[in-house]
Amino acid sequence: MTSLDDLPIRDNLRGLSPYGAPQKHVRVALNVNENTHGVPADVADDIVASIAAAISQIHRYPDREFTELRESLAGYLNEESAGAGLSAEQLWAANGSNEVIQQILQAFGGPGRSILGFPPTYSMHSIIASGTDTAYITGQRDAEYRISPETVVREIARTEPDIVFLCAPNNPTGTPVGLDTIEAAYDATRGLVFVDEAYAEFMPTGTPSAVTLLPGRERLLVSRTMSKAFAFAGARVGYLAADPAVIDALRLVRLPYHLSALTQAAAVAALRHSAEMLARVDEIKEQRDRIIAELPALGYSGWESHANFVLFGGLKDPHATWQRLLDEDVLIRDLGIPGTLRVTAGTEEETTAFLDALARADGAE
Amino acid sequence: MTSLDDLPIRDNLRGLSPYGAPQKHVRVALNVNENTHGVPADVADDIVASIAAAISQIHRYPDREFTELRESLAGYLNEESAGAGLSAEQLWAANGSNEVIQQILQAFGGPGRSILGFPPTYSMHSIIASGTDTAYITGQRDAEYRISPETVVREIARTEPDIVFLCAPNNPTGTPVGLDTIEAAYDATRGLVFVDEAYAEFMPTGTPSAVTLLPGRERLLVSRTMSKAFAFAGARVGYLAADPAVIDALRLVRLPYHLSALTQAAAVAALRHSAEMLARVDEIKEQRDRIIAELPALGYSGWESHANFVLFGGLKDPHATWQRLLDEDVLIRDLGIPGTLRVTAGTEEETTAFLDALARADGAE
Repeated sequence: MTSLDDLPIRDNLRGLSPYGAPQKHVRVALNVNENTHGVPADVADDIVASIAAAISQIHRYPDREFTELRESLAGYLNEESAGAGLSAEQLWAANGSNEVIQQILQAFGGPGRSILGFPPTYSMHSIIASGTDTAYITGQRDAEYRISPETVVREIARTEPDIVFLCAPNNPTGTPVGLDTIEAAYDATRGLVFVDEAYAEFMPTGTPSAVTLLPGRERLLVSRTMSKAFAFAGARVGYLAADPAVIDALRLVRLPYHLSALTQAAAVAALRHSAEMLARVDEIKEQRDRIIAELPALGYSGWESHANFVLFGGLKDPHATWQRLLDEDVLIRDLGIPGTLRVTAGTEEETTAFLDALARADGAE
Repeated sequence: MTSLDDLPIRDNLRGLSPYGAPQKHVRVALNVNENTHGVPADVADDIVASIAAAISQIHRYPDREFTELRESLAGYLNEESAGAGLSAEQLWAANGSNEVIQQILQAFGGPGRSILGFPPTYSMHSIIASGTDTAYITGQRDAEYRISPETVVREIARTEPDIVFLCAPNNPTGTPVGLDTIEAAYDATRGLVFVDEAYAEFMPTGTPSAVTLLPGRERLLVSRTMSKAFAFAGARVGYLAADPAVIDALRLVRLPYHLSALTQAAAVAALRHSAEMLARVDEIKEQRDRIIAELPALGYSGWESHANFVLFGGLKDPHATWQRLLDEDVLIRDLGIPGTLRVTAGTEEETTAFLDALARADGAE
């Protein structure tokens, strides 16, 4: 049997094993920050009707410019962030924000260029950097996983990166990143500042998005995803707001027709129901805050989270507790951060199941 | 206003303009080798029903391994190429064969590595090479755009590439590539041999696919697409058959969850109807052969084609004839090959519209 090492794969891939974490099927899956509420029936019906219309023309290549989707995304962000004043020319989308990030690095990263990132953070940032031969430089966070304006400026001066990556709120810690930090980073670099706002809809009401900083900042890029707030993880829709020139740069590297007609139709339909989807977001935020409020009575403490998950500490043996929960059919995430685990805020029932199982696990230090 | 040149884009992108060919809406579109027949109503209904089922779980990430789709693709190829004996472990898929090719180059190409290609051929091969920093070396074809076993061996010896790219049948010429040429290429290199079989279903009945060469050849990769035979250009489904170790290599570079649940459901449903879809392929082959048969009476000659299109020569001024056809709402393709144009074989009515407009255009040398 041929093995990977028998093939002429690239040197930087040699010795690696394919990512193959088992895809477990459990009663309560709170491990990958999905929106466990699902899509309401009326929204699902509208999506299916839109897709049925698209199927009638599925033998044709899709709109390479996904114009209607870009207009819908601009409309959504403008409604959320009053004054952002985004036009469709400032929007871009791809098959998940991972693909958006890959395209950004194909256009602005690559051999001889570098990213400054701040671990612990979304692990795909460094993986996509590696896949595009972009160096990934590690910056130091402040206490409690924060990044102050002074810290980001110091780390930029120290590392002179081509692109600064900020995850706001940060995954897997939930930590907010202030607009003052983003502004300071922008002013401190001549390179790009990329803000990954995958979880922005879960910020406390009234917290401004980095989208509001876009006017006048042509080197600022803000990505979002429909996976979380729109319960669309299976549909793979990530998107970006930036200067039209940045969008033009992505047109140079994207594969033609990268967004299928099915994806475009589904996303446009879902965006028509943003009010209904965001009402679910409020329910999830309540469960997140409930987790943080109830953890101390169990002997744990959760970090402040602006996302749909909570990182919590105070565990004697995180892996043992993770296994105890899995034995009760409750799946959460062990990210290897000492003494901690991460749990997604699910429905009220799922959150109760998690908290009850955690109480029985008896794993506090 | 910010321009592309004001941004820190990669040096090899500087000065380029985004690909922005207008997406024209015409009565008879025979320019991009779509399957103009569309999807039959019963197949469309089955696809929509499958997608509706997928929407109920769209808040969850899709099956990262797209197991059911890989099984369906293996079943389809095994039915077509008796004796191929493919298992699902030998199949891979992505958002269009462009993405499959990009993943292949991310795993096996990149800085310091090279592809040998044989222009005129599918233009995305060299574009994706550039996008992955893989050198693209040009090989010389024989007369009539053929590649004999001797020629491919000579060009491999001359250029010593890491990967040999063969497009079989070739786009935009329609030229077949014999299995003897593919075997000779394989034996002449220690690198990979990649065969792009996007149009394989349009080969004359009984012509063997390179898929039949896979047993015992772990460095041979054969890609297909559902865009053409399955009338699925809008759904973006390309796929690959190769040794399981090659598939493992692609797992190292693919973005997690790159294939949406919608794409997986739609493709699995369409593959259930392969017999019906292939009946349409026979109709298209008839129209292709009709074009080649009728061109000489109009003063032109078409190259032998094993695909769903015809490259034809004998034009005084290809661009002028292209424009004359467009004035009649018939859109074909000018690829810049002197004295030639390319036309997709459409329905009988579309083919008639093309031939009638061509007769009126009066552009023969």
